[in-house]
This record gives sequence, C-alpha cells and structure tokens, in this order.
Amino acid sequence: MTLRDFDSEAPAAASPVLVGVLAVVGVGLIGGSLAAALRQQGAVGRVLGVGRQTRTLERACGLGLIDAAASLEEAAAQADMIVLAVPVGAMPAILQELAPLLRPHTLVTDAGSTKFDVQQVAYAALGEKAGQFIPGHPIAGSETTGPDAADAGLYRQRTVVLTPLPENSAKDKALLTKVWERCGARVVTMDAQAHDIALASVSHVPHFLASVFMEQVAAASDSDLRMALAGTGFRDFTRIAAGSPEMWRDIFLANREALLSELGEVKAALERAEQCVRDGDGQGLHDFLERAALARRFWGSRSGLS
Amino acid sequence: MTLRDFDSEAPAAASPVLVGVLAVVGVGLIGGSLAAALRQQGAVGRVLGVGRQTRTLERACGLGLIDAAASLEEAAAQADMIVLAVPVGAMPAILQELAPLLRPHTLVTDAGSTKFDVQQVAYAALGEKAGQFIPGHPIAGSETTGPDAADAGLYRQRTVVLTPLPENSAKDKALLTKVWERCGARVVTMDAQAHDIALASVSHVPHFLASVFMEQVAAASDSDLRMALAGTGFRDFTRIAAGSPEMWRDIFLANREALLSELGEVKAALERAEQCVRDGDGQGLHDFLERAALARRFWGSRSGLS
Repeated sequence: MTLRDFDSEAPAAASPVLVGVLAVVGVGLIGGSLAAALRQQGAVGRVLGVGRQTRTLERACGLGLIDAAASLEEAAAQADMIVLAVPVGAMPAILQELAPLLRPHTLVTDAGSTKFDVQQVAYAALGEKAGQFIPGHPIAGSETTGPDAADAGLYRQRTVVLTPLPENSAKDKALLTKVWERCGARVVTMDAQAHDIALASVSHVPHFLASVFMEQVAAASDSDLRMALAGTGFRDFTRIAAGSPEMWRDIFLANREALLSELGEVKAALERAEQCVRDGDGQGLHDFLERAALARRFWGSRSGLS
Repeated sequence: MTLRDFDSEAPAAASPVLVGVLAVVGVGLIGGSLAAALRQQGAVGRVLGVGRQTRTLERACGLGLIDAAASLEEAAAQADMIVLAVPVGAMPAILQELAPLLRPHTLVTDAGSTKFDVQQVAYAALGEKAGQFIPGHPIAGSETTGPDAADAGLYRQRTVVLTPLPENSAKDKALLTKVWERCGARVVTMDAQAHDIALASVSHVPHFLASVFMEQVAAASDSDLRMALAGTGFRDFTRIAAGSPEMWRDIFLANREALLSELGEVKAALERAEQCVRDGDGQGLHDFLERAALARRFWGSRSGLS
C-alpha cells in the first residue's frame, strides 16, 4: 500500500490542465462530483456526460457539471480520459461497447466499489486494450444520489484505491493519480482481491447490516411507535441504508464470497456477545463493549473522519 | 402515547423558575446537559451536584453546570427535585440510600434508558414513597461522556419518555413535563414495558450490533489495513460503539429479554438477506434493499433528525 501526500490546496490558476477532454459515464453523485472537482480545480478542458437518461444529462448540463451530453461512441472519439461511474453490474456491457471504439491514447478508469470482478470484466471486454484500463475506487459517497448530489468537495481528504493491471503504463498510472489528487484525495495502490476483502469488512458488511436492521424495524407491526422513539444513534447507524438499491445489489453480488465470509465472522462475534447477555455476564459484556469503544475512539482520532 | 407541543423558544426572562433547588445525581453528559439547559432557561434556582468523583463535581462547578457539590443526604434535605442521571445498575443503591431521607414534597425522576426495571427498583427501594418517583428517559445522547460533554441544546427537539406510576400525582407529572419542555424536548408518556420493547429495537440493538461489528474489525489480523480503508459509512455506522461501556452493559442486562428477542428477529432477517446473496438472487436482494432504503428515507424526512 503506497500513500501519497495530500495536496488539494494548490491554487487552480497555477495548476495545469491534466485532461483535455474528460468523458464521465454516469453523471450521478460519484461521476458528477469528480467532474465538479476537476472543473473547480481547472484540471479539465471539456467534460462530456454519457448516460441512459436524457433528463439526468440535461440536469448535469444545467448544473454545470458537464459541457455536453454525448453517446459512448462520441465520447470514445473525443475523450482523453473516460471514467465509468456506473453500478458494477452495468460495466460489462459498457466496456464491450467501448472496446472497438477506444483510441490508443485514451485512458479508461472506473469508480466501482469492487475491483477483482471489474478487472476480470476489463480483460474479457477489452482484450489487447486492457492495458488502457486502470481499475479505481474512490472511498467516498453519500446516501444521496443523482447529479444534484454532486459535490466538488466529496473526495477531499478521502482515499482513492487504484488496483492497476500489470499492463498499465507508468505514465497512465501517474496521470490518474494526479487527477484524483487534484480532487483532494489520497491515492493508494493495492491488489484487487486484497481491496475486495478489506472493503467487504469495512463497507459492505455495515451496509448489509444497516439495511437488514432497517427493514426489520420497518416490517414490525409497531413500526410507527418504534420509529417515533428512534434517536440520533438510530439515525447514524441506519444512514447508509438509504443508499441506492441497484448499486448495492451489484456490489453484494460482485463481492459475494468475501461478504458472506465476513458476515460469518460477524455472526460468530454476535453469538459470543449474546452469550454474555444470556449468562448475565456483566464482566464479559463490559470487556467486549470496552474493546469496541476503545477501538472506535482510536479510529476516530486517527482517521480524520470524526 | 401523548404528544405535547414543542415550545422551547419562550424567552428566559419571561419564564418562571420551575424548580427552586435541583439536585443532579451524576453530572455527566445527561445530567450536566439537563442542568445546563434549565439554567440557560432560567428555570432553576440553585443546582446541587451529587457524585462519587470529587474531580467530576469540581469540573461541573468550574463549567457552571452546578452551584455546589453535595452529598445525597444534603441533596435530599434541600432539593425540590432530584434527577438520577446514573447508569441503570447504580440506581438500586442510590434509591435505597435516598428512601429514608426523602422529604414529602420532593419529586424524584431518572434518565435511565430502560424503564421497567427502574420502576421495580423504585417500588422496592422507596415503598410508600414510590409515588414521588416518576421514571423518565430522555432519548438523546452522544458518544462523548462526562461534564465537559454537557450541552444545553442536547434535548432540543428530542423526545423524552415518561412512564408514570399509578401513584404519581397529576401535579408532579405536570411539573416534570414542564421541566423537560423548558429544555426544548417533546414529552411522551407510555407504559414502561412498551417503552423497553420499542427501545430494545431502535436503540439497544443498533448499539449492540455496532459494538459487535467494531470489535470484530478491530480483532482481525489485518485490522490496520481495514481501518485505513474505512470511510464515512463506517464512521456513522460505528459512531455509537464509542459510547460508555458501563452504561451500555447496564442497559443490555436490564433489558435482556427484549434485547435477545429483537436480536433473534434481526438474525432471521439477516439469514433471509444472506440467502439472496448465496443464491445470486438479484431481484430478491434489490427488493430487500429497496424496502430498507425507502423506509430509511421516509423516516429521515419525518423525524427532523436527518
């Protein structure tokens, strides 16, 4: 894992354009925020938006996130860099369509939450051109969706993981790193499978548990009473459950094995904690809660996130 | 369940003193915030702080939360209202000590997160004087602790549940309601057991799951890597796990049956969701995630909390 220095404070005026023409496929929260950040930093010339929904693209134009809507074909003919900011499940079709259109110098990357499957999809769809694709994952998000949720500050002080292929050129990797750094992010490179295992734990499991819990409360016969008595703890614990069902379905299926394995570990830990409650084991319960509290406080003090 | 109108905006100058001498047993986040709010509103004359730790009481004095430290005996001799803001497990001993000292007109209440056990403890300890005790639970908190965490705004727009005993006088109930309303809270009255069951679901289960998850991540052999890749979703999902181990141990033990029953429901829901993942059932997974997302968004739009 390689950490690069965080440097988002360089003045836009002094900063060079990194990407002449950027094409963003999927101008929602993730793609729209990338476009907004790079425009704010003066790091892009022209931004094209590609997507299935005309209304979304019009809105992205209206918000100033993109200069124009384009087809994937038009984007491939003009763009120096293409970012796929779509649910993981939509990537095979897009990469297959893109493969014959891709010009030799164009760099392609993605923002998907799983990386091993994306890597496999890229090899299968792009073949000889796979070296032009660098898998990436900005670890940032929000429970809000669509171009209206785009935020030029979304990636500031956040981590972006790149899981480069052996075929990627050093020049492309350096450029993509610079692009994310200009958004204020910290770039880390690691192996795709190690990424998926770690993210199963700290991202996919929390979303899964928050969603399971939220659905269980909502399905209770007295859910109105329960929800009326829910406070700020409930609010924070369940916030991620409001996220996009399509996106998270794709993530859970794409990272199925690691997710189920981690859930197994969590269930074993849950069983141990429940046993303390059943046994009225105050000391055991206290020790478990203290380990959790100390770990969370330590993380909070180190992460810069809380 | 009875809702009263929210009215915290009355100017302090025009508002009468509701409690001549208030004694707060346990001047931490919960007790300290109550004292701070009532002082800010001009609703109390003198505030006494009772506690085991001299340093905490001195700090509470220094912060202006209380006028003076007092023993429980001194508090009982002077106070018009005594608020027990201590972990549920500490209440039996305090109420037993208080029972013979309690003057006839003094109103006693608590801020414990479980209510049926507190009610039983009050009957056992106070006997004939149980009618002077009104069990209460302000649904507000924070992962921070101690007098430095006290915040006069903690109860603003929050719900306070009272679970009155049949022996409580209408006058006392009206006074206690006014006291909480002056802190900006909305007061709800309900049955103690119904409270405990609802809170097991929307407060105790989330805390239990967040703590189990946090401990499981921290215990992993690659926990450093995991935590370096944790983002804002992880931050919010685990925030409550940083809370006081003592307080939550007592809550889990006091509400053991309802907690274990709710955890059983959550595990059944988890098993159903996991089966969708195992089966690669994208539709089932999507439908479950959509139910959760819609429920959470609806709650967020209604609760005033997000």
